[in-house]
Amino acid sequence: MNNEQLDVIAVGAHPDDCEIGCGGTIAKLAKQGLRVGIIDLTDGEPTPLCDDPAIRVAEAQAAAEKLGAVKRIILELPNRRLFDSFEARVELAKQFRIYRPKLVLGIGGKTPLASPDHWQAMQITDAAIFYSRLTKWDEQFDNLPVHRISRQLYYSLLFNGDFSGVGPKQIVHDISDTFDAKMDSIRCYATQFPPEKQSVFERVEHIAKSCGLAAGFAAGEVLTSPSPIASQNLFETLMLN
Amino acid sequence: MNNEQLDVIAVGAHPDDCEIGCGGTIAKLAKQGLRVGIIDLTDGEPTPLCDDPAIRVAEAQAAAEKLGAVKRIILELPNRRLFDSFEARVELAKQFRIYRPKLVLGIGGKTPLASPDHWQAMQITDAAIFYSRLTKWDEQFDNLPVHRISRQLYYSLLFNGDFSGVGPKQIVHDISDTFDAKMDSIRCYATQFPPEKQSVFERVEHIAKSCGLAAGFAAGEVLTSPSPIASQNLFETLMLN
Amino acid sequence: MNNEQLDVIAVGAHPDDCEIGCGGTIAKLAKQGLRVGIIDLTDGEPTPLCDDPAIRVAEAQAAAEKLGAVKRIILELPNRRLFDSFEARVELAKQFRIYRPKLVLGIGGKTPLASPDHWQAMQITDAAIFYSRLTKWDEQFDNLPVHRISRQLYYSLLFNGDFSGVGPKQIVHDISDTFDAKMDSIRCYATQFPPEKQSVFERVEHIAKSCGLAAGFAAGEVLTSPSPIASQNLFETLMLN
Amino acid sequence: MNNEQLDVIAVGAHPDDCEIGCGGTIAKLAKQGLRVGIIDLTDGEPTPLCDDPAIRVAEAQAAAEKLGAVKRIILELPNRRLFDSFEARVELAKQFRIYRPKLVLGIGGKTPLASPDHWQAMQITDAAIFYSRLTKWDEQFDNLPVHRISRQLYYSLLFNGDFSGVGPKQIVHDISDTFDAKMDSIRCYATQFPPEKQSVFERVEHIAKSCGLAAGFAAGEVLTSPSPIASQNLFETLMLN
Amino acid sequence: MNNEQLDVIAVGAHPDDCEIGCGGTIAKLAKQGLRVGIIDLTDGEPTPLCDDPAIRVAEAQAAAEKLGAVKRIILELPNRRLFDSFEARVELAKQFRIYRPKLVLGIGGKTPLASPDHWQAMQITDAAIFYSRLTKWDEQFDNLPVHRISRQLYYSLLFNGDFSGVGPKQIVHDISDTFDAKMDSIRCYATQFPPEKQSVFERVEHIAKSCGLAAGFAAGEVLTSPSPIASQNLFETLMLN
Amino acid sequence: MNNEQLDVIAVGAHPDDCEIGCGGTIAKLAKQGLRVGIIDLTDGEPTPLCDDPAIRVAEAQAAAEKLGAVKRIILELPNRRLFDSFEARVELAKQFRIYRPKLVLGIGGKTPLASPDHWQAMQITDAAIFYSRLTKWDEQFDNLPVHRISRQLYYSLLFNGDFSGVGPKQIVHDISDTFDAKMDSIRCYATQFPPEKQSVFERVEHIAKSCGLAAGFAAGEVLTSPSPIASQNLFETLMLN
Ligand SMILES: [Zn+2]
Ligand SMILES: [Zn+2]
Ligand SMILES: [Zn+2]
Ligand SMILES: [Zn+2]
Ligand SMILES: [Zn+2]
Ligand SMILES: [Zn+2]
Repeated sequence: MNNEQLDVIAVGAHPDDCEIGCGGTIAKLAKQGLRVGIIDLTDGEPTPLCDDPAIRVAEAQAAAEKLGAVKRIILELPNRRLFDSFEARVELAKQFRIYRPKLVLGIGGKTPLASPDHWQAMQITDAAIFYSRLTKWDEQFDNLPVHRISRQLYYSLLFNGDFSGVGPKQIVHDISDTFDAKMDSIRCYATQFPPEKQSVFERVEHIAKSCGLAAGFAAGEVLTSPSPIASQNLFETLMLN
Repeated sequence: MNNEQLDVIAVGAHPDDCEIGCGGTIAKLAKQGLRVGIIDLTDGEPTPLCDDPAIRVAEAQAAAEKLGAVKRIILELPNRRLFDSFEARVELAKQFRIYRPKLVLGIGGKTPLASPDHWQAMQITDAAIFYSRLTKWDEQFDNLPVHRISRQLYYSLLFNGDFSGVGPKQIVHDISDTFDAKMDSIRCYATQFPPEKQSVFERVEHIAKSCGLAAGFAAGEVLTSPSPIASQNLFETLMLN
Repeated sequence: MNNEQLDVIAVGAHPDDCEIGCGGTIAKLAKQGLRVGIIDLTDGEPTPLCDDPAIRVAEAQAAAEKLGAVKRIILELPNRRLFDSFEARVELAKQFRIYRPKLVLGIGGKTPLASPDHWQAMQITDAAIFYSRLTKWDEQFDNLPVHRISRQLYYSLLFNGDFSGVGPKQIVHDISDTFDAKMDSIRCYATQFPPEKQSVFERVEHIAKSCGLAAGFAAGEVLTSPSPIASQNLFETLMLN
Repeated sequence: MNNEQLDVIAVGAHPDDCEIGCGGTIAKLAKQGLRVGIIDLTDGEPTPLCDDPAIRVAEAQAAAEKLGAVKRIILELPNRRLFDSFEARVELAKQFRIYRPKLVLGIGGKTPLASPDHWQAMQITDAAIFYSRLTKWDEQFDNLPVHRISRQLYYSLLFNGDFSGVGPKQIVHDISDTFDAKMDSIRCYATQFPPEKQSVFERVEHIAKSCGLAAGFAAGEVLTSPSPIASQNLFETLMLN
Repeated sequence: MNNEQLDVIAVGAHPDDCEIGCGGTIAKLAKQGLRVGIIDLTDGEPTPLCDDPAIRVAEAQAAAEKLGAVKRIILELPNRRLFDSFEARVELAKQFRIYRPKLVLGIGGKTPLASPDHWQAMQITDAAIFYSRLTKWDEQFDNLPVHRISRQLYYSLLFNGDFSGVGPKQIVHDISDTFDAKMDSIRCYATQFPPEKQSVFERVEHIAKSCGLAAGFAAGEVLTSPSPIASQNLFETLMLN
Repeated sequence: MNNEQLDVIAVGAHPDDCEIGCGGTIAKLAKQGLRVGIIDLTDGEPTPLCDDPAIRVAEAQAAAEKLGAVKRIILELPNRRLFDSFEARVELAKQFRIYRPKLVLGIGGKTPLASPDHWQAMQITDAAIFYSRLTKWDEQFDNLPVHRISRQLYYSLLFNGDFSGVGPKQIVHDISDTFDAKMDSIRCYATQFPPEKQSVFERVEHIAKSCGLAAGFAAGEVLTSPSPIASQNLFETLMLN
């Protein structure tokens, strides 16, 4: 793995956010031959059952492999105290300038009763996408060249019943043939999902399958677009061919 | 089974609507000792694989038994050409006057690409609830006494991705211990769900389980209230006791 | 023009509804080699400046040609007093059974201060899509074979400020290269848009261009889907290739 | 009172709908020198405590006087079985052609657990506004001249917690100085609001006052516009002068 | 008053926020035998008519007594310049760890034209609920044991017409028998509500009564839940027993 | 130009935000004899084609003149790294205390894929409106007297398809006779809109005209109010006189 361009970067606050929110999508895009990377803003540690951050890192690398992601980068922003700040934005934007993705997948929305880092991560990601393309700021970015990201999609963490199903400007992405890879990638986080938390797997499965079946797939992930769903070939967009 | 009062009546356009939309709720209420009835506005026939309406009726009766419903009435309104009309409203309101439920469960919303009968059934049910309590109209109702229904809830048919999840003024009702009865009741409709339509069972299951888990239950059904969710005991309403 | 299958049918209440609401889409699909037809539920007459329904019919045929539609059928349902009824549904469903489209484009929503026919047309179209696939009802449909329509989209008439822009489950369809055809088709209705009503052309143009530019196109039409926007190839859906 | 033009017509399903929904607005407009009329689609009878429809008519006339309305017309459409139909639309549109209002106030929305007539009245009113301006249809309208109504607003009946407060495209209309007239007009309906139904007065009062105070008035009524709230003088619209 | 566990904690930005937003709920829960506390993030001072912060504190204590709250804590975060920050979150989370509530009531939403502290308080409260249960962070919390809060509800401050009434996932809580206590508690703030601001009392009253009556109560408060309204006993949830 | 009171102040993050979002409104109010000022929180620099911030300032002054604004102030907050902070709020609030406007126009909403400064500017403006009227804080405001702003409206930047058209509590403001001034003012920013970015002008035009025509105007701007649209003279508010 080197610094070659990535087609897609998924951004999470903690290792396992991307797997839960858009793991099937990552695996699907990778399977279609695209180069996909994952960036975790923090290492997600400490957590109750993880004795060493190195273990979480190893879990994250194993999960990335299950999904076919060619790169996983864990930034050193502080877990549990993530805030939208100039420095955090620059940290992430540097990665965008290095890996030059066309598409960024980021956390969408708040997660009441769960980590406030998710809400901050959304704002950091939104801002870093803009920072990535700003000229005349080279000194802030180690002289990395500017890069304009074409599209952004939000994924949902579903922690707390705030699952809005198939809503405004959303796409249900078919993950039928990568659903197993998604589940496998989540299972890599042994420290996060011990036997007493197995209900996470059930929730992820039932949500993926109910969303997918609504769209005619065996399993799906819901992605929300801040810009319009545009079509130049309606039959293709509607999959009527 | 006689004409004793029912505590709850669920109304569908066709035999199997109530099972799919609120079968777990019917079974749960029955299990809690309430007397629950089902009214289908039409016999739902003809359908491709059913050779005789009597078969569908028998399926419906078997389904009612699986759910513990003490009454099932199939009105003779015309399937496929159901319209909100004075006569249809009176037909249903008569049953409300006879069985005097406190709570009515009815179809909520449209079902694009599926039967327009569902949308009409919603309007007939809404109107019949009002007709049930109108005085000075005895001649229209075979002199049945008036009856005021206390509450109305809508259930969702989920046919076409119009599953809005956990939305406005909605209650997620725990059907963990009656989920199997719900599935069994749907399976009674052998003419409707032949082997090639088994995906219905999957969809019903994944929706019930993803809704349920969002609320902390193994399985749930979403019910929508036109009137406010009111509470006189907040800890009880929030199940914090 | 014969009774060969059509790929797409657009349905309006009156000749000019389809042109205003989805004329660019009709022309675009035709240009891409699809066979597109238009069905008007009524002849739209009488109107103030049209002395003979035959003139409106001629205008409609000229408009269809501008759009490259291979078929235009004007049903004989009554203008100004269109109601969702069994007979109206069957009239339209017969056409669906004859022409067997994969996709139906229909009016979406109400048009306050303008014709109530539009709201009724929506309900007739919704129902006829279902009627088209019902077996064991051949006698109602002149023994035409059943036909299952794959997808339905709603277009908007924009008459009265009820233009909701780029909203839930909507697609902005690129009509850059058929915008002129759309405008030409509307101009065919000389009896409907006399000099004092030229502001219609301006409104249609500004809406098409503001919607389009939001999606990166020179001009666009907004289409709403009752079922999820589904994707099996995200880069294709997002037009990132 | 003769057939002179009216500036405003408020339309209800039953005598007392207009009083409850927009009585303060009627009185305010009248006080400002406008000629306001009320049309009830039905006589609202029978009801439990009213022994003779003539009593309700007398109550309605007294109520109109309290509000300063110069005209009250009770159409003979059937209470409790009101349906949107061609005949009902024509009945109402004839009145619009006779009295030629600039503004029509009509019922907005459904009233679950209460009368389905309200939902039908909304559709009849919407359609009649269009019928009022249609040319070449003189025979349906006793040769009354066409009339184009400029604006339409919806009022809310508030029966069942479906009070959406200060929402989309809504105006809070100051009824501080006509609130008493509104209450007096409702009190005219002695047969409808006997001592055991006095809570209606409380609800009407608390809603009027909470809406009003939100906008800086002692009392208000919420009116919803299907067309945009437009302004040519922003300081005037915002009452900053 | 000692450090015994509290069942419920209401959090406000300033002394009087909790009284205005959920005073009736606090009093009701206290009356039902629950131990309820109030935490104000700031002392709310300075304000125009209060000469000494000690006066506001005394008012707050008097108000807490009116409501039957067993504890009131005023944190020393800065009024008028409250920001969501790590330190503010920890300050509040420590209190949650000390008093170990099952339910937290917090400010919901923004208050345009009024204090931005309210919007920040919402974010601090959301985060502190999560911080309360994090292990391996004892040094930040004076070695207080972790505590998992079961449920969170938002109350509304109603300052500026942003009263959304009876909306999504909302509960109308009956405060009929504690409405007077609520009003008394607000009156304790003599420095905040001088004679020229008496309209606050009117607004609070009319809102409480219109919300309450919509749900069948003499008075109510609207509480919004970020997680689903769940039910294991539908008749109980609907208060049909 | 001196420090006389201004009737209206429009606030943007960067010079050109106000022009794009509410330039027609500024010009219209100025034309009606009101004194309007513009405050840019930052100088918007650097940008790709601008070699010197002084050029952007000159463009901004020229633009202000085109609109008839009597004052333009460019604060020295940092472009690209604008954050809601105490200091930023005070900077802006000081200007409100000096110029004492009745109405403030501010940025509404987020701008995905574009600058995060816009979202921060919204929060700074919201807070500064409150800071402007706080007593007992003179030391923070150079002893400027307090000032209570009467109303606030949000304008929309439309960058990214997040144009929600004619939505909740919105006013379409007629800019027919100042549309040209608006376009001219945007054209003053030669460094921002070089030939390859001419599509900005098209978008601004088509949006202004489609919004306007929806309300019956040749061109319009949409303004959103956080407080209710209130009326004491309904015919005036509806422009029926
Ligand atoms: Zn996480
Ligand atoms: Zn059915
Ligand atoms: Zn039409
Ligand atoms: Zn009524
Ligand atoms: Zn406060
Ligand atoms: Zn900007």
